[in-house]
Amino acid sequence: MSSSPSIITCKAAVAWGAGQPLVIEEVEVSPPQPQEIRIKVVATSLCGSDVAAWESQPIFPRIFGHEAAGIVESVGDGVIEFKEGDHVLTLFTGECKRCRHCTSNKSNMCRALGLERSGVMHSDRKTRFSIRGNPVYHFCAVSSFSEYIVVHSGCAAKVSPNAPLEKICLLSCGVATGLGAAWNVADISKGSNVAVFGLGTVGLSVVQGAKLRGASQVIGVDINPEKVEKAKDFGVDVYLNPKDYDEPIHEVIKRMTDGGADYSFECTGDTRATTSALQSCCDGWGLTVTLGVPKAKPEITAHYGLLLTGRTLRGSMFGGWRPKSDIPSLVDKYLNKEIRVDEFVTHNLQFEDINKAFELMREGKCLRCVLHMPR
Amino acid sequence: MSSSPSIITCKAAVAWGAGQPLVIEEVEVSPPQPQEIRIKVVATSLCGSDVAAWESQPIFPRIFGHEAAGIVESVGDGVIEFKEGDHVLTLFTGECKRCRHCTSNKSNMCRALGLERSGVMHSDRKTRFSIRGNPVYHFCAVSSFSEYIVVHSGCAAKVSPNAPLEKICLLSCGVATGLGAAWNVADISKGSNVAVFGLGTVGLSVVQGAKLRGASQVIGVDINPEKVEKAKDFGVDVYLNPKDYDEPIHEVIKRMTDGGADYSFECTGDTRATTSALQSCCDGWGLTVTLGVPKAKPEITAHYGLLLTGRTLRGSMFGGWRPKSDIPSLVDKYLNKEIRVDEFVTHNLQFEDINKAFELMREGKCLRCVLHMPR
Repeated sequence: MSSSPSIITCKAAVAWGAGQPLVIEEVEVSPPQPQEIRIKVVATSLCGSDVAAWESQPIFPRIFGHEAAGIVESVGDGVIEFKEGDHVLTLFTGECKRCRHCTSNKSNMCRALGLERSGVMHSDRKTRFSIRGNPVYHFCAVSSFSEYIVVHSGCAAKVSPNAPLEKICLLSCGVATGLGAAWNVADISKGSNVAVFGLGTVGLSVVQGAKLRGASQVIGVDINPEKVEKAKDFGVDVYLNPKDYDEPIHEVIKRMTDGGADYSFECTGDTRATTSALQSCCDGWGLTVTLGVPKAKPEITAHYGLLLTGRTLRGSMFGGWRPKSDIPSLVDKYLNKEIRVDEFVTHNLQFEDINKAFELMREGKCLRCVLHMPR
Repeated sequence: MSSSPSIITCKAAVAWGAGQPLVIEEVEVSPPQPQEIRIKVVATSLCGSDVAAWESQPIFPRIFGHEAAGIVESVGDGVIEFKEGDHVLTLFTGECKRCRHCTSNKSNMCRALGLERSGVMHSDRKTRFSIRGNPVYHFCAVSSFSEYIVVHSGCAAKVSPNAPLEKICLLSCGVATGLGAAWNVADISKGSNVAVFGLGTVGLSVVQGAKLRGASQVIGVDINPEKVEKAKDFGVDVYLNPKDYDEPIHEVIKRMTDGGADYSFECTGDTRATTSALQSCCDGWGLTVTLGVPKAKPEITAHYGLLLTGRTLRGSMFGGWRPKSDIPSLVDKYLNKEIRVDEFVTHNLQFEDINKAFELMREGKCLRCVLHMPR
């Protein structure tokens, strides 16, 4: 008979204010509550959404991070799916498997465990972190910038213990989102023309997904020429920098594709790029998938004529994956060398150097920085 | 051996300026050119797009009208598909059956015979109408407000001679557009919740299509309470007038549908209604189809979050029908009493009373006014 889990005191990177450097603090991590698990984080990578929220959202003190892999340390009452020692990926959007959405087979917008924006846990609207008894808020009910974390059992996916956690953490958000956008949301068909706006981790994951589906031409658009080398490595056939042209980039793309791409993807977090992406795809069947989370101008605008002539604009959360059900199979694909993940890791940093990762992301100098927790 | 067709002089309703009453004039109708046919129009109905173009577009003198049925009078060189006496519907967007789009099996945006906006014929950029030798411009390369018209053979569909032309003319645009939006574009599934914005002919055709697919609840939205009776007849279960509510109408719809409709349709020609329609459908799989052609504010705006949470915004021309290939089967469905058309005809008018039809349409007092040509 195992003893009940107790409070763990460990290191976490705490954000005390918008845009302020994180501070490594001693935090108390409460035991997992019913249906929750506590995870020893092994590796966590920094995603653009962490940076965007840290710059703009007013919930502090807070522990960011949502793209992570770790090992189950303890489980709360009622948890039968996980046990101590299981390897898991955290899920920033969960799957209860019981609500109207989870049972629909056509949605991953779980009603019970969807994206949590208030800085608390789904079940009791409280936090599992504290500093000297004062609450420290969560991010997406994951908060992986801590050595130990508590998540709902519906917000973690058990994965093969053979996979290196410091690599597959990328499948917890960015790489999976891009692959899913290409496969689940767009369902790219062989021989297609594809335009991808934004060549960060998400955009290049779309590129990888498009190439694996047999896209004949992938056009990559980014204003940062430093992205070119990686972009070509992942399969971008033509790189376009809008700054190199006097005309709107969609005119260039339409010329290159006999009227427009079959599919276009917005992976920049700028709603103006969504408009360009829609303008870049062809009439009749052109599909634009928007993935980015904008920091400013949350309204997408598009001339009605773009739609009237047969285009479609679609969005999705997490690439349309049902997170618990589908993500373990992506880890298996990685182990089978069917998808590439390692190449997205441009920087490996110790956890205490987390502010360096934020700098690299803000400056557009990285794809993914993986933060390694102390052993 | 038949003699070559010669010029026909007949009556047409000519628009001489934006918003000015049409004038019944004697016009010369040239013989059909190669690949064209000349049609004796039997009945033509007035569509909102005629009114919108007449109010706003600068091409005059012009003959409007694009929703019509008639009988082939003569054919030009190279036409083998039609012969004198064939019953036809005119097509405001044609089908060449050879271009990338026509052969794709996934688009009706024919490259060769698509919507013609310049007031001329596709083949030679000239007109087939004149008054004392001076050109009178076309509308959508159809211009059915004339006793005789010339259209490209790719812009007409041969239909059963058993169908009453004064009814099936509605399948040449409005009724077909709505049915196609429900069936081809949205592909409504049984048991769905459907919200339709705008309860004119197009909107009520969506309603009819939704009900025939087994939609469990159809919510109809219109600011004109005179639409209610017909709306209920066509299957609207709940009528909502936004003027009756202090809150945005999408909040009302979301409450009535446990989070949002499965499908929503914008059939008003107001891009603000497109935004409302998108807000009215559910996350995860909600699909909004936009059909209307706005007179003002051509930009659709939508918060990115509506898309990110799994909604889709799609448009289409002519309900996604491949016009020549598909429309004859709709006439057959009408003859088999599988679809209703007669009930959309609220007014039967003699051709010379065409300005009355324009008044009724502008005032929202009709669904369809059918204009009967002199025998």
